[in-house]
Amino acid sequence: MTAAVPPQHSEQEAREERLVQQVQASFDNAPDPRLKELLQALTRHLHAFIREVRLTEQEWETAIAFLRRCGDITTDTRQEFILLSDVLGLSMQTIGVNHPAEGDATEATVFGPFFVEDSPEVPLGGDIAQGASGEPCWVTGTVRGTDGLPIPGARLEVWEADDDGFYDVQYDDGRTAGRAHLFSDDDGRYRFWGVTPTPYPIPHDGPVGELLEAVGRSPMRAAHLHFMVTAPGYRRLVTHIFVEGDELLGSDAVFGVKDSLVQRFVRHPAGSPTPDGRQVGGPWSEVTFDIVLPPEGAGATA
Amino acid sequence: MTAAVPPQHSEQEAREERLVQQVQASFDNAPDPRLKELLQALTRHLHAFIREVRLTEQEWETAIAFLRRCGDITTDTRQEFILLSDVLGLSMQTIGVNHPAEGDATEATVFGPFFVEDSPEVPLGGDIAQGASGEPCWVTGTVRGTDGLPIPGARLEVWEADDDGFYDVQYDDGRTAGRAHLFSDDDGRYRFWGVTPTPYPIPHDGPVGELLEAVGRSPMRAAHLHFMVTAPGYRRLVTHIFVEGDELLGSDAVFGVKDSLVQRFVRHPAGSPTPDGRQVGGPWSEVTFDIVLPPEGAGATA
Ligand SMILES: [Fe+2]
Ligand SMILES: [Fe+2]
Repeated sequence: MTAAVPPQHSEQEAREERLVQQVQASFDNAPDPRLKELLQALTRHLHAFIREVRLTEQEWETAIAFLRRCGDITTDTRQEFILLSDVLGLSMQTIGVNHPAEGDATEATVFGPFFVEDSPEVPLGGDIAQGASGEPCWVTGTVRGTDGLPIPGARLEVWEADDDGFYDVQYDDGRTAGRAHLFSDDDGRYRFWGVTPTPYPIPHDGPVGELLEAVGRSPMRAAHLHFMVTAPGYRRLVTHIFVEGDELLGSDAVFGVKDSLVQRFVRHPAGSPTPDGRQVGGPWSEVTFDIVLPPEGAGATA
Repeated sequence: MTAAVPPQHSEQEAREERLVQQVQASFDNAPDPRLKELLQALTRHLHAFIREVRLTEQEWETAIAFLRRCGDITTDTRQEFILLSDVLGLSMQTIGVNHPAEGDATEATVFGPFFVEDSPEVPLGGDIAQGASGEPCWVTGTVRGTDGLPIPGARLEVWEADDDGFYDVQYDDGRTAGRAHLFSDDDGRYRFWGVTPTPYPIPHDGPVGELLEAVGRSPMRAAHLHFMVTAPGYRRLVTHIFVEGDELLGSDAVFGVKDSLVQRFVRHPAGSPTPDGRQVGGPWSEVTFDIVLPPEGAGATA
């Protein structure tokens, strides 16, 4: 402390710092060193927040009530704490930390709540829509390693909302649509039909929605198509492709957009011939998305 | 960035920092400037936490599940998020920030969940125990301002657990015991009978209790007697007195102990005459606690 700080101020600072030290010390004997590290760091950052903003007791009460309301609305199918993490960018930051930059590896983005295990397999060139409404979209690309070599037999899980902005699991009729998996060919290439992605909102009828409303933020996600790509010996990739020109790219509610994931969707008018001769009976689009995987363990957290 | 940082590392750092900037910017148009300030600061500190500890996706999932379980156990009478705030010292830090050091003003501490409005009034020298079990304790002191002048007519709310560690509201028989209010006399003096404080645990049969268990911390609170003191023109004081020699002073589960609040409780054997001639039929104790209030608005958050 400098001589310019009045003594009273330093007494207050000393009290606040002493408390932070006490709380951190309370975790000193935790048997699990990682748990100790996490709780001591969390303590440091949360106390720094309270001290910096000079949190009022009223604001503390509001925060406690907000967390309680997040708990009240949460069920097995509605996870408000995940939404909260998402809209604060914490989910995306966690993903970034666990998928560090590695050569020209494709960037990861949020997993989202709509992935389902045991999706149906489609052959190369097959249709993942399976009745999901929307404009047909031809998706092609190559899967390769950061070493430049193609990856044959990579498993691509793809899933997306329909034209009304709903995933199959959001309907109560048990349908499976807009999701499938397929495998890259001997040259690492893949191709399938889906539907052109459309925007949809995250659930916003709860406390997180009220928070977004209070700060003037939209609950909309930019239009996207989900990918999860796995191949033995390579780091798993969870990502999306986004649609060039989508006006929501700059305000995605969960901060999932990365410039490198924004792709050009070429629109073709009704009647234009399709790459595989399929009769689509209306306009269709096509997009190319090349996928680059780093080796397993690359850039792992130290 | 220095030349020593490999380009790949700086790309990762740049991505992480860009995300923090994006999330902060998403609050730029919040109509309420204080809400904007709070959310931008919270964003900064929580992202710093994730980046510093390199939070894994598994750890993130564990944290989400923990918050959900806190929500599941929370009711009108069981507030797990308050307990979480308490055991991380966040409640105490908030109180400290809102009751900054001011001359020789008495330090504040946690409010706790057991205060009840409309407590009965007792006269000076009256008994607040009202049937609560425990060793009788004679409590006296003076209420004065930081200017040294006594404060007549100050309202003292006092409440405490019984000898079994329970507050009246924790019984289901609707009793009122171990709580009352009284007023200081013309010289600022007060006196009442209560019971010698005993330790008790915070509720620890939920996720917060498991957390304490996992890190080897006790759920016990050091023995204490609650005070809330109000007087027109003075800052409200919420505090406790603690018992000198209590072996829990160094490990209070909610970090409520301040050295200045630890008082000497003098023990008197059965049969010793009491200050007011009351027949207590056993051993009793006495304690003196002088209370100093700063003027209203003193040290208010800038
Ligand atoms: Fe999605
Ligand atoms: Fe208490």
